[in-house]
Amino acid sequence: MARKALVTGAAGFIGSTMVDRLLDDGWQVTGYDNFSTGFREFLAAALRNPRFRLIEGDLLDEGKIGAALEGIDTVFHFAANADVRYGLEHPRRDLEQNTIATFNVLEGMRVHGVKTIAFSSTGSVYGEAALIPTPEDAAFPIQTSLYGASKVAGEGLIEAYAEGFNIRAFIFRFVSILGERYTHGHVFDFCRNLLRDPTQLQVLGNGRQRKSYLYVQDCVDAILHALANAKDKVNVFNLGANEYVEVNDSIAVITARLGVDPKLVYAGGDRGWVGDNPFIFLDTRKIRGLGCSPKLTIRDGVAKTVDWLMENRWVFESRA
Amino acid sequence: MARKALVTGAAGFIGSTMVDRLLDDGWQVTGYDNFSTGFREFLAAALRNPRFRLIEGDLLDEGKIGAALEGIDTVFHFAANADVRYGLEHPRRDLEQNTIATFNVLEGMRVHGVKTIAFSSTGSVYGEAALIPTPEDAAFPIQTSLYGASKVAGEGLIEAYAEGFNIRAFIFRFVSILGERYTHGHVFDFCRNLLRDPTQLQVLGNGRQRKSYLYVQDCVDAILHALANAKDKVNVFNLGANEYVEVNDSIAVITARLGVDPKLVYAGGDRGWVGDNPFIFLDTRKIRGLGCSPKLTIRDGVAKTVDWLMENRWVFESRA
Repeated sequence: MARKALVTGAAGFIGSTMVDRLLDDGWQVTGYDNFSTGFREFLAAALRNPRFRLIEGDLLDEGKIGAALEGIDTVFHFAANADVRYGLEHPRRDLEQNTIATFNVLEGMRVHGVKTIAFSSTGSVYGEAALIPTPEDAAFPIQTSLYGASKVAGEGLIEAYAEGFNIRAFIFRFVSILGERYTHGHVFDFCRNLLRDPTQLQVLGNGRQRKSYLYVQDCVDAILHALANAKDKVNVFNLGANEYVEVNDSIAVITARLGVDPKLVYAGGDRGWVGDNPFIFLDTRKIRGLGCSPKLTIRDGVAKTVDWLMENRWVFESRA
Repeated sequence: MARKALVTGAAGFIGSTMVDRLLDDGWQVTGYDNFSTGFREFLAAALRNPRFRLIEGDLLDEGKIGAALEGIDTVFHFAANADVRYGLEHPRRDLEQNTIATFNVLEGMRVHGVKTIAFSSTGSVYGEAALIPTPEDAAFPIQTSLYGASKVAGEGLIEAYAEGFNIRAFIFRFVSILGERYTHGHVFDFCRNLLRDPTQLQVLGNGRQRKSYLYVQDCVDAILHALANAKDKVNVFNLGANEYVEVNDSIAVITARLGVDPKLVYAGGDRGWVGDNPFIFLDTRKIRGLGCSPKLTIRDGVAKTVDWLMENRWVFESRA
């Protein structure tokens, strides 16, 4: 009998990629999304598959997500307020869409006896880590963003439910993810702005901010690999590339790919915005020790992202 | 001009003790409490003081707590669902009363420009720490209780607001607190049960669970000492005694104090309940390094608690 998955944020970047992968792997998949930032287009293939059903709903609707969880084996909880940068302008959004939404998923799991959850957390939970690359058991962090705070709150809830209600938890702390269906973040912004004006490009900070990225297919590989191979009740994994680049390096890949040569205008300072972390670089020895490594370099991931964006310019319109 | 404090959970054990101390120290004090577990009796002295005002309200009432914060210098945020043990039976209560309530306090602070918060967190945020005594910068914890999860969520929110909105934060991770006005926890339960039946006493677990306690006046001393002397934007301190006892040791103090000699009936196992941590013992070198140490031993704290309970047996009736 096919295993039954529910994917929250199913119409999002990573969620829809996971939906397609699970369907390829023979799962029966329920997608759950409120379409606040997701795209129906990303589910076009899935919607033609008889093993897929879509539920349009918000995770703040406890009754709806609860009912959707009946009969599910594994939840891939990827729905989140992804608008990391604007947390300070809408403080309640992270609380609701990340923390309370995660609580509602867990309550639905408890009531319906769903025993496995995979959760997309973030390297931002480490705040400004003293130790870089940062391992999963780094020092107790001080949060520096509402996004990180809301995700660490979600992690804690998941762990407490795992302990209290015999649920297996797989928590993944991501670096930024790139690849097909990528629709927010600085590669997106740079491509959109260069399409509008190829002669110059505004850059937040000084361009020296170091970032690590992971290609979305490598991310999905790692999650499924951990689910199949990690043995603890609560399994926490950093997911990221074993390298980093500077913002200026991704700009070089982007401009080369687009064949443009803009003047770069830096806003200055060592970070993009209040609460931005100048350097997130995760120690990924734990997941690699389980036999799983990214296949793509960061530069190749950026290049693939640029190519996809150029072939799907409609996403720029819908994110205007 | 008198400094202006708002104390949430003002009618509670630690909150009311802080209210009295602040009034003694010349502060103007607003007490905020929903009286779900607090006692009006604990505010009897404060209510006779012209520098005290009481607001009866719930922290889920954003408008009410927001308005109460106008003109306040320092928030002592002590309101919480203190029903640690029953978290698994009412999962939403910890989320609402600890995490969302803390968010509402922070939003009120942001809107009204309140710049300092002291927060009662818990040693439970360390989960089952590998390192004992556990320092503030212990390894990134795995939560084992909904109470711990809700408190670590509150810590993260406070830290993110401190970073984003220029607020100074003082986060205190308590062991269990004992002393006058103590109205829940195992010393309370043991005293109540021994008053009913002095011939035998049921003990959860095997009685060997090691616990560290702090006397409430030492706790209040430490909080005010940290506020006056710690210099960071976000200051995290463990608060606890520099020793621990076993549950059996506190039973010995209690029975000696009560002059009873009950048969001890152990439920067995190495912990009291699912999610109970068999040993919380915090490294308190950081607060001691700031020149602040507890004045009372744990045994003296237990004895003082028993004496107060015997003189205030009405609390047993109201917690029936």
